[in-house]
Amino acid sequence: MTQPATDHTARLMDGAALARRIVDEAAATAAGITSRTGAAPCLATVLVGDDPASVTYVRMKRNRCARAGIESRHVALPAGVTTAELVDTVTGLSEDPSVHGILLQHPMGRHIDERAAFEAIAPGKDVDGVTTHAFAAMAFGLPGFVSCTPGGIMRLLDAHDVDLAGKHAVVVGRSAILGKPAGMLLLGRDATVTYCHSRTRDLAAHVREADVLVAAVGRPRFIGGDAIKPGAVVIDAGYNEGNVGDVDFDTARRRASLITPVPGGVGPMTIAVLLSQTVRAAAHQESLRR
Amino acid sequence: MTQPATDHTARLMDGAALARRIVDEAAATAAGITSRTGAAPCLATVLVGDDPASVTYVRMKRNRCARAGIESRHVALPAGVTTAELVDTVTGLSEDPSVHGILLQHPMGRHIDERAAFEAIAPGKDVDGVTTHAFAAMAFGLPGFVSCTPGGIMRLLDAHDVDLAGKHAVVVGRSAILGKPAGMLLLGRDATVTYCHSRTRDLAAHVREADVLVAAVGRPRFIGGDAIKPGAVVIDAGYNEGNVGDVDFDTARRRASLITPVPGGVGPMTIAVLLSQTVRAAAHQESLRR
Repeated sequence: MTQPATDHTARLMDGAALARRIVDEAAATAAGITSRTGAAPCLATVLVGDDPASVTYVRMKRNRCARAGIESRHVALPAGVTTAELVDTVTGLSEDPSVHGILLQHPMGRHIDERAAFEAIAPGKDVDGVTTHAFAAMAFGLPGFVSCTPGGIMRLLDAHDVDLAGKHAVVVGRSAILGKPAGMLLLGRDATVTYCHSRTRDLAAHVREADVLVAAVGRPRFIGGDAIKPGAVVIDAGYNEGNVGDVDFDTARRRASLITPVPGGVGPMTIAVLLSQTVRAAAHQESLRR
Repeated sequence: MTQPATDHTARLMDGAALARRIVDEAAATAAGITSRTGAAPCLATVLVGDDPASVTYVRMKRNRCARAGIESRHVALPAGVTTAELVDTVTGLSEDPSVHGILLQHPMGRHIDERAAFEAIAPGKDVDGVTTHAFAAMAFGLPGFVSCTPGGIMRLLDAHDVDLAGKHAVVVGRSAILGKPAGMLLLGRDATVTYCHSRTRDLAAHVREADVLVAAVGRPRFIGGDAIKPGAVVIDAGYNEGNVGDVDFDTARRRASLITPVPGGVGPMTIAVLLSQTVRAAAHQESLRR
């Protein structure tokens, strides 16, 4: 039952603007820490190998750190590093008091036990929210850092005063750092939450029920806009080749009440949350030393 | 749209019988460990205060241990114990090589930080599956112990050859040891999973969509049988006053294809999984010492 297109157009959720505000706040806090302690908050970035996309992502994150007054310490490891060596490196950073946050870029290569490497990050420095500790904290509403993209999604929803209690949130995708934690955060805010994924039958029927839709599959225009419930809030966490999201934006925006553009929606929020959490980690570690 | 009652009656999922088989297996493994090592697998049970229900639960679990050739070491703490003292006790048991599994009965009292107490259980001894480590392992499909009731539910489903891939599983309830992990285990088996709870609007509409329904709210006959989808598999993890489950059994059994009775469905499975995991923990710890 496709409804005819109307003149209605969803309001855009401007992640770029919100991300700028969050980064500005982080920069102000970082400046305070630097002036009080004589050392800037420090994010260690660990990169295994030289995958071009990963190299670009890490460089982008380091540039953003620099602009916000956050030091970044880069550790480049050869593609052939073993899991044990990688775990040793990460453990060293976890124990180094001059490092406040750790970003372990992935994928790390198929020969690496990525879970073991992530778990070597001390929970207090897990500013990317990749450890099992962070996941359980998100699921149980405990203090801790959140995974950056789900955390960014929640901040976008809050900035637009989206009331989640009792709403039906449908998360399409179930990755460990995006779909699963996003669903747990939404559940913690009293949404009814449905997880859909590649094995889901009749995805469109589930999408049709969503008051809040989170698309996190990484397949271009995988979710047709005609399936969007009129008035729904659409969060597109996909970012595919050709700057295209997981949702067919042009159709979806005629039905949704709020929608994230791609690019400029969820994307900028991810780095903003990373920087914000790095500064928070530094402030917390500073407070423990006083 | 209530369908008229028919002569159809769902097949019962006999948890008592399956639990007996699991306990028999555990007992055989326990006997092997005892004869090889000279010491029986040992479950430490920790009880804070003297809440009558908790006293009964712990006694029941210890009796079942004894019948399966599993030693249980009981630690009774006064109701006024502090979190720090409780954490110390649990940490001691985590480090004691003669203890293979730890059961920390809850609730522990409102003045106790239960999460801190649970986290003092070493992951390798968390045979009740209550730590954040266990939860994340269930969510990410990593090796580890499962929460006993969700683990029992999965074994019941498997014993009845319920194919979960692509099915819509609706979990009503979102507690840390039942609803949330049950949903994660079902998601790990490729079900589409919906979490409903006290804030869910129009629960019946969600129940109507469930190919597999897991009721875990702890409210007697909270879920009316008329909302059950014809042919659904109904798992009732509720156990309320008067031996009544969360689902209206008499109505539900006329619509479901498979249903757990209360009592005799999920209940016996919980202890069976606890014993089974205790023996597995002992076997694993034995293997590490060889």
